[in-house]
Amino acid sequence: MAGSVNRQIVLTELPRGKLLVENFKMRETQIPKARDGEVLLHVRLVSLDAANRAWMQGETYRAALNAGSVMDGYGIAEVIESNADGFARGDLVLTTTGWQDYVALPVGNVVKIERVEPLSHLLSVYGIAGRTAYHGLLSIGQPREGETVVVSAAAGSVGSFVGQIAKLKGCRAIGIAGSPEKCNWLVNELGFDDAINYKEGDLSRALKTSSPQGIDIYFDNVGGQILETCLEQMKLHGRIICCGAVSSYDGDLPDRGPRGVPRQIVIKRLMLKGFIMSDFNAERDRAIADLRAWVQAGRVKIIEDISDGLETLPSALVGLLAGENRGKRMVRVS
Amino acid sequence: MAGSVNRQIVLTELPRGKLLVENFKMRETQIPKARDGEVLLHVRLVSLDAANRAWMQGETYRAALNAGSVMDGYGIAEVIESNADGFARGDLVLTTTGWQDYVALPVGNVVKIERVEPLSHLLSVYGIAGRTAYHGLLSIGQPREGETVVVSAAAGSVGSFVGQIAKLKGCRAIGIAGSPEKCNWLVNELGFDDAINYKEGDLSRALKTSSPQGIDIYFDNVGGQILETCLEQMKLHGRIICCGAVSSYDGDLPDRGPRGVPRQIVIKRLMLKGFIMSDFNAERDRAIADLRAWVQAGRVKIIEDISDGLETLPSALVGLLAGENRGKRMVRVS
Repeated sequence: MAGSVNRQIVLTELPRGKLLVENFKMRETQIPKARDGEVLLHVRLVSLDAANRAWMQGETYRAALNAGSVMDGYGIAEVIESNADGFARGDLVLTTTGWQDYVALPVGNVVKIERVEPLSHLLSVYGIAGRTAYHGLLSIGQPREGETVVVSAAAGSVGSFVGQIAKLKGCRAIGIAGSPEKCNWLVNELGFDDAINYKEGDLSRALKTSSPQGIDIYFDNVGGQILETCLEQMKLHGRIICCGAVSSYDGDLPDRGPRGVPRQIVIKRLMLKGFIMSDFNAERDRAIADLRAWVQAGRVKIIEDISDGLETLPSALVGLLAGENRGKRMVRVS
Repeated sequence: MAGSVNRQIVLTELPRGKLLVENFKMRETQIPKARDGEVLLHVRLVSLDAANRAWMQGETYRAALNAGSVMDGYGIAEVIESNADGFARGDLVLTTTGWQDYVALPVGNVVKIERVEPLSHLLSVYGIAGRTAYHGLLSIGQPREGETVVVSAAAGSVGSFVGQIAKLKGCRAIGIAGSPEKCNWLVNELGFDDAINYKEGDLSRALKTSSPQGIDIYFDNVGGQILETCLEQMKLHGRIICCGAVSSYDGDLPDRGPRGVPRQIVIKRLMLKGFIMSDFNAERDRAIADLRAWVQAGRVKIIEDISDGLETLPSALVGLLAGENRGKRMVRVS
């Protein structure tokens, strides 16, 4: 066993306004025991996701986070002790590990996965980022060759895959991101057709220049004003893939929604559809096979943003919400 | 030929704020001639639809209306002179007749229809009202037995059919309407399971009482605050059928959308889908066959609200926007 104590990061208080690293503190406890039907896990990698912040706002697709509890998060862990059939020391699992070195969990809460090197690919391209992009764009968006796909938070974990997959399907890919450096990188490194810095100038005009015929598919990671602007520029029978609303996670819930709902939806017969990755678990194998083939052919680049050490988790999440990452952000715990 | 002049109702100015009968005036002109490839039509029935008012706000699924033109509208007309192959005196057609006694149109703009008695059924149950309800609820909503269907403007032309079809499919039907009389009528005459007067008390609480498990399908005719309230109470994987936004037609366009977009859509993986009847023209025959069978079996009641005389059109539309009609409103022109 690697350590003798279990370090845990606790969400000491729910943020008022923006999340701060001061909302967390580290504590040390004993390493738990695996009870009957449980496995003791050593946490390897923890995923940082904008949704982590939304969990602090109240009930979502899962229960709300409470002050005083270990901060929750998805991750990859290794079984170091098993008290359950079908699990052995050395097995690798995906689960909500929480922000800690060790956790004991009932096996009903964990999913055994095949080992891949590097492990981080199980959270990026073959995990939450790649599969969210894959299922959202392909199953919900149903892109056809020649269509225009716009994605917000385009340099982020999901967005960077959305644009690359859109290109693979013969679409025009337009990214919306928050700095000129990210925009250059999207076009020059990831092959987007165009990228727009929403913090500079008039997004509406930039979108019209970039997509004079309008938008067929908008993959929305942010909600808010950018969703409002894209709604206006959707084409007839356009599709909006509602993946997240990061513009409204780090603060109070907004008291208004985007203008044009439902007017634009009716007039242009749009579809808006929300989803989370696990809605598509039945299609997981096909997604991973496709993603693997594209990676091996060099047609999809895997962008990861990894920091080392459990203690970096609070600043990694705060920074993610400020848009400082490119690609899939995670923390290597052990 | 029935008359010697053609009475026309002109939209003299675009309304500022609410539409008024003073925004229209009647004029008399000569009866037009059918040119080559045209038919001369005698208008029989004109449909009143909330969308007529939306056309005054700007471009929608069709061009905007302009001040000084004959007011536009769908209707049923009879061919009284044909200068085109395939059309003969006495044929009945569906088209945008406009608010006038006579109109000459190219045959590409008209659809020949079989005569039905009474003619009004071609605008109500077998026309825009019944087919909008049918396609929206069944093709988009995909209701399953036991689900809860909520419909706004429930006593209106489309809403009254939505609730009745929902019941036929084994769903619970909850109507939202604007008076206690309408609510009683929905339950006692049309067989809705419950009806809520949104002008009285707390809609959110009333919906929770009526549907404690939440809403599976919301058929939205109104947008605005009612859409916002229903969004909050949708169940996981719920569907919202975006048919209209009458709450925002009779005045300026709203500068905000419903709170909860996109948060509720993501969290609950909702689908919102806009449509207009003509999107489903390929399924017209099946819709009409089903509707006819239900009418003949006494399982769908046809509710019509007909006034007589071209000159009643302005007050009929103003009244429709104020919610005074029950069922399908139309004007008998001749």
